[in-house]
Amino acid sequence: MMRKIYDEALVKGQSYENLHYLCKNIGGRLSGSANAQKAVMWGKKLMENYGFDKVYLQEVMVPHWERGAKEVGYIIDGTIKVPVKLCALGMAVATPANGITANVIEVHSLKELDTLGEKAIKGKIVFFNRPFDARFIRTMNAYGTAGDQRRAGPSAAAKYGAVGVIVRSLTESDDDFPHTGATDYIDGVPKIPAAALSIKAANKLSALLKKSKVKFYFKQNCRMLPDALSYNVVGEMKGSENPNKIITMGGHLDSWDLAEGAHDDGTGVVQGLEALRILKSLGYKPKNTLRAVFFMNEENGDKGGLKYAELANKNKEEHVAAIESDSGGFTPLGFGFDGLTPAQLKAVNSNWRHLFEPYNADKLTAGGGGSDIEPLRQFYPKVALIGFQPDGQRYFDVHHTPNDVFENVNKRELELGAAAIASLVYLIDMRGI
Amino acid sequence: MMRKIYDEALVKGQSYENLHYLCKNIGGRLSGSANAQKAVMWGKKLMENYGFDKVYLQEVMVPHWERGAKEVGYIIDGTIKVPVKLCALGMAVATPANGITANVIEVHSLKELDTLGEKAIKGKIVFFNRPFDARFIRTMNAYGTAGDQRRAGPSAAAKYGAVGVIVRSLTESDDDFPHTGATDYIDGVPKIPAAALSIKAANKLSALLKKSKVKFYFKQNCRMLPDALSYNVVGEMKGSENPNKIITMGGHLDSWDLAEGAHDDGTGVVQGLEALRILKSLGYKPKNTLRAVFFMNEENGDKGGLKYAELANKNKEEHVAAIESDSGGFTPLGFGFDGLTPAQLKAVNSNWRHLFEPYNADKLTAGGGGSDIEPLRQFYPKVALIGFQPDGQRYFDVHHTPNDVFENVNKRELELGAAAIASLVYLIDMRGI
Repeated sequence: MMRKIYDEALVKGQSYENLHYLCKNIGGRLSGSANAQKAVMWGKKLMENYGFDKVYLQEVMVPHWERGAKEVGYIIDGTIKVPVKLCALGMAVATPANGITANVIEVHSLKELDTLGEKAIKGKIVFFNRPFDARFIRTMNAYGTAGDQRRAGPSAAAKYGAVGVIVRSLTESDDDFPHTGATDYIDGVPKIPAAALSIKAANKLSALLKKSKVKFYFKQNCRMLPDALSYNVVGEMKGSENPNKIITMGGHLDSWDLAEGAHDDGTGVVQGLEALRILKSLGYKPKNTLRAVFFMNEENGDKGGLKYAELANKNKEEHVAAIESDSGGFTPLGFGFDGLTPAQLKAVNSNWRHLFEPYNADKLTAGGGGSDIEPLRQFYPKVALIGFQPDGQRYFDVHHTPNDVFENVNKRELELGAAAIASLVYLIDMRGI
Repeated sequence: MMRKIYDEALVKGQSYENLHYLCKNIGGRLSGSANAQKAVMWGKKLMENYGFDKVYLQEVMVPHWERGAKEVGYIIDGTIKVPVKLCALGMAVATPANGITANVIEVHSLKELDTLGEKAIKGKIVFFNRPFDARFIRTMNAYGTAGDQRRAGPSAAAKYGAVGVIVRSLTESDDDFPHTGATDYIDGVPKIPAAALSIKAANKLSALLKKSKVKFYFKQNCRMLPDALSYNVVGEMKGSENPNKIITMGGHLDSWDLAEGAHDDGTGVVQGLEALRILKSLGYKPKNTLRAVFFMNEENGDKGGLKYAELANKNKEEHVAAIESDSGGFTPLGFGFDGLTPAQLKAVNSNWRHLFEPYNADKLTAGGGGSDIEPLRQFYPKVALIGFQPDGQRYFDVHHTPNDVFENVNKRELELGAAAIASLVYLIDMRGI
């Protein structure tokens, strides 16, 4: 059966052309935008065309943040203005209409900020410049450990009276694209403008700061609009034995506005869909109900994932497992499992690892999940939350930048991921977990 | 020690900048060309700068084939000429000065050619159009099985009186670049001109052939010059216990002329060198003599590999193991081992697999080697010939095309490969194999 699944994915696969449509005919699709709505309609139509047993939308209110006109920033070195590439962090507030100009203080951690205190920080632009730690073998870990600067940095700096925050982009790639991504303002702390600097810009600013007391200027024009009505898109194959037991597969339909959201997370969306399509096209009759879900609003709110879990609980569904693909559409390594006992994980390995070995997707490890499926945990303490884990070396080269486009996805890598997900869904459905 | 090796590769690695120089300041470097000679000088200088115990060249005579002026080809559909992208196969002969025009017969295998026989083939251009088999998980296997068309097709067709051969490019990628590569003329059979068609050209020609009796025209201007003097480049760290026992690591310095030879095999060259540099920079004192070798002429003759083995034997060296990186500079999967008994391979896995697991380079399998190191086998029946095996999904997108450039190599993927090779060399040196 796995061989059939892989053959279908590699020879008659539709994930690549679906991704092409999503990237090129729709493009970037931030929650609340017209493009996000187009993507919802596209997804529903596509699932209907595939003839799944049931296709429907789940209403969900989502934050609606807009970037507005392109950001401008420069280093002020005496009388010289050195333009740099930067972009507002997602959910950030705008600068005043004439921008912010201030002295810059470079820091490398939230702790350093606390050590410096208000005296050093007040009235300044705080520049978080701790780079990715290249020693991590998994880039996702480098992202995780550097990410506090972007997520928590702006509010942490605001507490000490900073007037703005600029953050080194979360990447190891030595490029000149700012990498956007959400920041999390803390309630009760003033919201100050916050932007991501490209790596080249961050390096330049840091070098100049070593020589002289440069200032920094930036202007951004983003705003929050009222929450918008949006949707998760759901397609189902009905279970023949346990129709109320659910296995979920999918990714998030929304993306940042700067690019096409190809790897983040167009690939996850089309892979979840493709997994269901493959099983249907092979004539497989599932025991449990299999669901492909396009979640809305992972990037700046997770409202789609929260709504999905809330409705699951409300509708008294049983959830066996959920698989999320949101680490890029690269060559599969395997899956990370959250919610299994050590004995269960051992059994998964002894029963299934050898099945995935011929396909090089045999790393079945602890830890996994994903933002869209994690809300299920509160209602289903024992559900297996499974993260699809591809090779991530290239992910943060493109992540949240204008380079996250269709052309940077490899057809075979994408298809192998869809086949791996379909295979795991098949095994869980047949044998349980 | 492995952690130190990986840290050195990822934090202070020099493989990426060395590859940049090789690709951008030298470029394509076919055997016998001025660029190949430049690459030899660059390699020797670089090894000397690294301060290895001994750096030297091994003289070797290599074939000297030149492409000449760019090829021209078109489909003749009645009065319409449809231009197509094609290029001469390496080692092929030129067409007459005014090109070849002939009817086309499409075939899908050497066997089909035999079935058709002289009557159907004589006076025609034979068009080999069997595609890559997408079902292979390892693209190298698809290349291996489709490759007989390019390697053996021209002589096979000439036996039945064909006047020329055009071959579908050896790739799954749906692009418009012809993929070059060597053909092997058989002695005693007329040498007929042979070229590779881009996938788009092959698909177009095949579609037109289904509708009408189109002809094909092509003109190529390649030629064989007298054999040229060239060199393998060798750098050594002397063994402290067994100076006459050798562990070799490397790749081939020559490349096709159409691009920069980045993945094929600039990455293998800089990885072998980097592995030796890393061990030296960590202060490691090897028991055995460690050698980084830049082999010459893998692409169209293997003369460098043959010379290396011949000299090893002549100099009464003992060879423990040789590791070749010639499958692209992508994320490592592991290594393939040729020449081990099943018991040895089992021991390699039980002793070392867990060491490579944290680095995702733990697939230690049977089968491996590589064209440059295989000639060692005749003199050293028990030497371990080890092929570095990276993830190959993208390899044949760029292989032997103008897209095989530095920009298509990822820094971290390259560095992880160098670290994996250094680690394996370290383990073999310390513990034997």
